[in-house]
Amino acid sequence: MSITVKALQKTGPDQPFQVADIERRNPREDDIVIDIKAAGICHSDIHTIRNEWGEAHFPLTVGHEIAGVVESVGSKVTKFKVGDRVGVGCMVNSCGECEQCQAGMEQNCLNGNVGTYNSKDVDGTITQGGYSQKVTVNEDFAVTIPDSIDFDVAAPLLCAGITTYSPLARWGVKEGQKVAVLGLGGLGHMGVQIAAAMGAEVTVLSRTLKKEEAAKKLGATRTLATTEDGFFEDHKGEFDLILNTISAPVDLDAYLGLLKPRGIFSTVGLPPEALELHMGRLIGGGKVLTGNNIGGIEETQEMLNFCAEHGIASVIEKISVDQVDEYYDKVVDGDVIFRAVIDTATFEK
Amino acid sequence: MSITVKALQKTGPDQPFQVADIERRNPREDDIVIDIKAAGICHSDIHTIRNEWGEAHFPLTVGHEIAGVVESVGSKVTKFKVGDRVGVGCMVNSCGECEQCQAGMEQNCLNGNVGTYNSKDVDGTITQGGYSQKVTVNEDFAVTIPDSIDFDVAAPLLCAGITTYSPLARWGVKEGQKVAVLGLGGLGHMGVQIAAAMGAEVTVLSRTLKKEEAAKKLGATRTLATTEDGFFEDHKGEFDLILNTISAPVDLDAYLGLLKPRGIFSTVGLPPEALELHMGRLIGGGKVLTGNNIGGIEETQEMLNFCAEHGIASVIEKISVDQVDEYYDKVVDGDVIFRAVIDTATFEK
Repeated sequence: MSITVKALQKTGPDQPFQVADIERRNPREDDIVIDIKAAGICHSDIHTIRNEWGEAHFPLTVGHEIAGVVESVGSKVTKFKVGDRVGVGCMVNSCGECEQCQAGMEQNCLNGNVGTYNSKDVDGTITQGGYSQKVTVNEDFAVTIPDSIDFDVAAPLLCAGITTYSPLARWGVKEGQKVAVLGLGGLGHMGVQIAAAMGAEVTVLSRTLKKEEAAKKLGATRTLATTEDGFFEDHKGEFDLILNTISAPVDLDAYLGLLKPRGIFSTVGLPPEALELHMGRLIGGGKVLTGNNIGGIEETQEMLNFCAEHGIASVIEKISVDQVDEYYDKVVDGDVIFRAVIDTATFEK
Repeated sequence: MSITVKALQKTGPDQPFQVADIERRNPREDDIVIDIKAAGICHSDIHTIRNEWGEAHFPLTVGHEIAGVVESVGSKVTKFKVGDRVGVGCMVNSCGECEQCQAGMEQNCLNGNVGTYNSKDVDGTITQGGYSQKVTVNEDFAVTIPDSIDFDVAAPLLCAGITTYSPLARWGVKEGQKVAVLGLGGLGHMGVQIAAAMGAEVTVLSRTLKKEEAAKKLGATRTLATTEDGFFEDHKGEFDLILNTISAPVDLDAYLGLLKPRGIFSTVGLPPEALELHMGRLIGGGKVLTGNNIGGIEETQEMLNFCAEHGIASVIEKISVDQVDEYYDKVVDGDVIFRAVIDTATFEK
């Protein structure tokens, strides 16, 4: 016995999405079943289902930015009750016992956590993501969505939100600091809002000034075009932290030059190519090059509470299930302002 | 009027050292004159005077690991009195006013600090280093050498000591952590002792096991040969921090794999070539790649006090002024155990 629900599925990397029936498990004693209201489209979904990050297990449903309402709960669930507003991000399980899980860093589980889709679950099945009507997950991997944040603009917080909040919080961004956000897309537009809410003076770095107005609305004090003559010389030593959200190769040596002594370049964008770097660019001024991969469950809740407190949400285009193929191309082209979110009510049409 | 002293001098990058008379300034009101007892040979001296790091100003005397006794003081000196045991490291002045100087990080002075040699001093002259009988410096750039540390084994602490202490202290190395020191030379042998004194379990990483016994004496629990088959696979995820002290290129992707999640690879070795790095190696596990360049004056004093408290000093070969050319080749070949220090009394022979 299981729960049959509609989901967007691909049967191969080059096939279009189709609506199919998939099975969700009945809740175990520590599971909740979520009636999904909105599911964000993350660039990782596209990389995965197009086989750009290795072999995907087809047929596959992706999506790890999930917002919805608790529909039923297992017998030993204590964290949630029916009707609660909840979210699920990139993970649905981890060992819970290693030093990383114990420290609240399930994203770094030493025994490997279970991803929300295309991942081997504890029962051996392949997890299926959130482009769907419902999902069953362990209660420990769901978080509470504050009442003040609508489902559709909350969904992207579960990945894009935590991905940018975690490094900014980790490195202690605070009032009076100068933060640059490199790239203004799904991740960048969250990074700008969060860094500004932490009190930093935020600069958007982009190839052009095309998104200057949008950046200002999000809380950036200025946008700088990195392609301008003398850019790296003119802004030498300016920033406490640069958050890199772009997945194209960047000139690390040049960007490290924009940092103050002890400044931090933290990347959440993942260019696949090897980049070149001179160690002298780190030694001079004792600079830091680092990366970050989402955040733990407790930190994800902390991020949602922070967003509620500061009136932050994702800026989205709400789309129907039959627009997903079209929007995949738009995401790749950087033409979405700033996140596409699937309205799961459109499964019923 | 000035003070004429003997010094080891080169007139060009390929000339041998010769003993020459050089002039030290009479102490200004905030200066002290130091009777130098010992001067360490740092690899940076060699790079500089052989023109490997750009144009050196000849004739030149190098040396930035200086230990001696205060011989006279300017009228407004408050920090020292005649007879005090003092040391001078890599800097002899800085602006004192920028945010970095104010934060005790004179090494990152935004207006450029004055290096101990081959650097333009505030009066426009070129600074001359410690391979010499005496030196005049601003009192703020001298530190106290604790009584328990002999001059000859103290001298290398002023560069090799602070260079390795600063990153280990900065990243909070402590009891129960696993620290790897990559390379066991002048820098590495200090790093091992300091990390062990901080309570870490220290592993030396070296191409061979040649220095295994020496490493153990310094406080390392083991030495691992990085050239062994399967080394990077066998020791995956083991270390909290790797301190890289070698200036040859290293495979950053591979070494980052040896770190635990959130682990730190801090380099003080400076390979001149660009190295390759995949951002995914930093993003997975949120790892940190960083560098460090000496430390501030207050931190240098803290390091000396730490060394005195823990009975740490440099392990040296004491040499005379006429052996320096020969020892330069030995340093380059890695044949010194572990630091060559010039006994300045041999100027008199």
